Amino acid sequence: MFDVYRLRPDPDDPRLSQAVSGIDQTGRALETRVIVERPLTLYLNAQEIVTMMTIGDHPEYLAIGYLLNQMMLRRDDVISAVDFDRELDVVVVRTERQTDYEEKLRKRTLTSGCAQGTAFGDLLEAIEGAELAQTLLRTSWLYRLTHVINSTPSLYLAAGAVHGCVLCEEDRPLAYMEDVGRHNAVDKLAGWMFQNRIDPSNKIFYTTGRLTSEMVIKTVRMGIPVLVSRSGFTAWGVELARQARLALIGRARGKRFIALAGGERLIFDQDLDEVAEESRLHRRKAAAADD
Amino acid sequence: MFDVYRLRPDPDDPRLSQAVSGIDQTGRALETRVIVERPLTLYLNAQEIVTMMTIGDHPEYLAIGYLLNQMMLRRDDVISAVDFDRELDVVVVRTERQTDYEEKLRKRTLTSGCAQGTAFGDLLEAIEGAELAQTLLRTSWLYRLTHVINSTPSLYLAAGAVHGCVLCEEDRPLAYMEDVGRHNAVDKLAGWMFQNRIDPSNKIFYTTGRLTSEMVIKTVRMGIPVLVSRSGFTAWGVELARQARLALIGRARGKRFIALAGGERLIFDQDLDEVAEESRLHRRKAAAADD
Repeated sequence: MFDVYRLRPDPDDPRLSQAVSGIDQTGRALETRVIVERPLTLYLNAQEIVTMMTIGDHPEYLAIGYLLNQMMLRRDDVISAVDFDRELDVVVVRTERQTDYEEKLRKRTLTSGCAQGTAFGDLLEAIEGAELAQTLLRTSWLYRLTHVINSTPSLYLAAGAVHGCVLCEEDRPLAYMEDVGRHNAVDKLAGWMFQNRIDPSNKIFYTTGRLTSEMVIKTVRMGIPVLVSRSGFTAWGVELARQARLALIGRARGKRFIALAGGERLIFDQDLDEVAEESRLHRRKAAAADD
Repeated sequence: MFDVYRLRPDPDDPRLSQAVSGIDQTGRALETRVIVERPLTLYLNAQEIVTMMTIGDHPEYLAIGYLLNQMMLRRDDVISAVDFDRELDVVVVRTERQTDYEEKLRKRTLTSGCAQGTAFGDLLEAIEGAELAQTLLRTSWLYRLTHVINSTPSLYLAAGAVHGCVLCEEDRPLAYMEDVGRHNAVDKLAGWMFQNRIDPSNKIFYTTGRLTSEMVIKTVRMGIPVLVSRSGFTAWGVELARQARLALIGRARGKRFIALAGGERLIFDQDLDEVAEESRLHRRKAAAADD
């Protein structure tokens, strides 16, 4: 079932989680796994851009995706090198084009929910100029995708406290990234897509995070026409999705989902009697590691 | 049950959520409520500090709490005025002391999970100098608190997609804030505590968000000795809590919880047979509005 993935989580990577001891509600000693967060400082050429807290896998993809989604890298930029220093927790992206974002770095908007600072004005332009493919979406794909994604071995199942996002095509998940920062997970996926020249126009983007304005803007920036989440919506996220003609599907759990934009692109080919309710394991989100 | 609160959510406030139409998994048209996010630009005296995305209630508390938690306001600062302009979505905090954070604003670390940019170096000093009261914690308080909090009418129950945090004393919740950004919820509570001169040393801080390094640092900064969450942990969050001697309790759902720091301060006075498992409504977090 998992061989459809080109990239998926490695919950056994010892650098991504660690065992800690504590006690449970009866006072009994226990050991549990918790997720690691570590700083990663990003340079674009000679300029320090930001320090992010991340689980630390795929620093190169995170760096490239962050710069793309912040509009500091252009789609036609040539990346001459990406150097990662594991000792220093530093990643340097070098481009042929000279870059200078001194002014941009001065002015950041802190965005809602789970967010990194973003210069919002720029990003809103992405919405206005959006030309997303108006692909159709079969509901049978949605249920198949959530079933496979929820069954995939992940840090989320092993240690909790991470967000995941998955790039999918029809009913197949292709690349699954996780991070303690949900925007890091998105950015890692954006970096992977850029480096592997993935066509976004026939893809579906699944996230565990909420459908906020920033999540919608990033998805539109990435050129993906469908955004699906198990979480809920914000009003501005819905409004921007409608403007950009992004199909926006949320609260996708078990049999249920709601489409608040692009619902006319859905094909209802799934017999709902054959869909299981979400498993207890998945409902007990943060507690997953103890089940 | 709710008259113990000095401040609690107002889910009926029409500015905080709005009705939007869409379709469900059967193609049936529906209307649902979604949370609002709006920008709020914060000035400290003449200096523009940041633009935040927030649900928009309590802008004055958010402004003061943000500045306190970013160490741009000191505990002994005298606030001469807080001016909020609803038309412009601008809040200005004026202090008697002259302030200048040009340099600080240049260098921000983007923190994990759900986060605002923070100059981390400064904040880590809060951990080193921490002198938290080593209060005891009855497990009966914990179960009573989560029961009352989960039953309290909230935006979370009405529209989903928000985080909540609650300041508690023994088994009584005192102040409950919600926001689309979980750090906004914390900062609003910090602002409320500052303006109302609330003693933090005998309090318990409950959050729906994950127990990351930044959440631990903010709790320590606020002087609260116990942090409880229904969500999970990060390794660095646990490490910092142990250094600061903050009691750290996570994955608190239904009968269960785990203490990964300060477990020796727990008094196990609750008969677990009398604790109900978490209700279905609360397990179906983001889908709450549709149940």
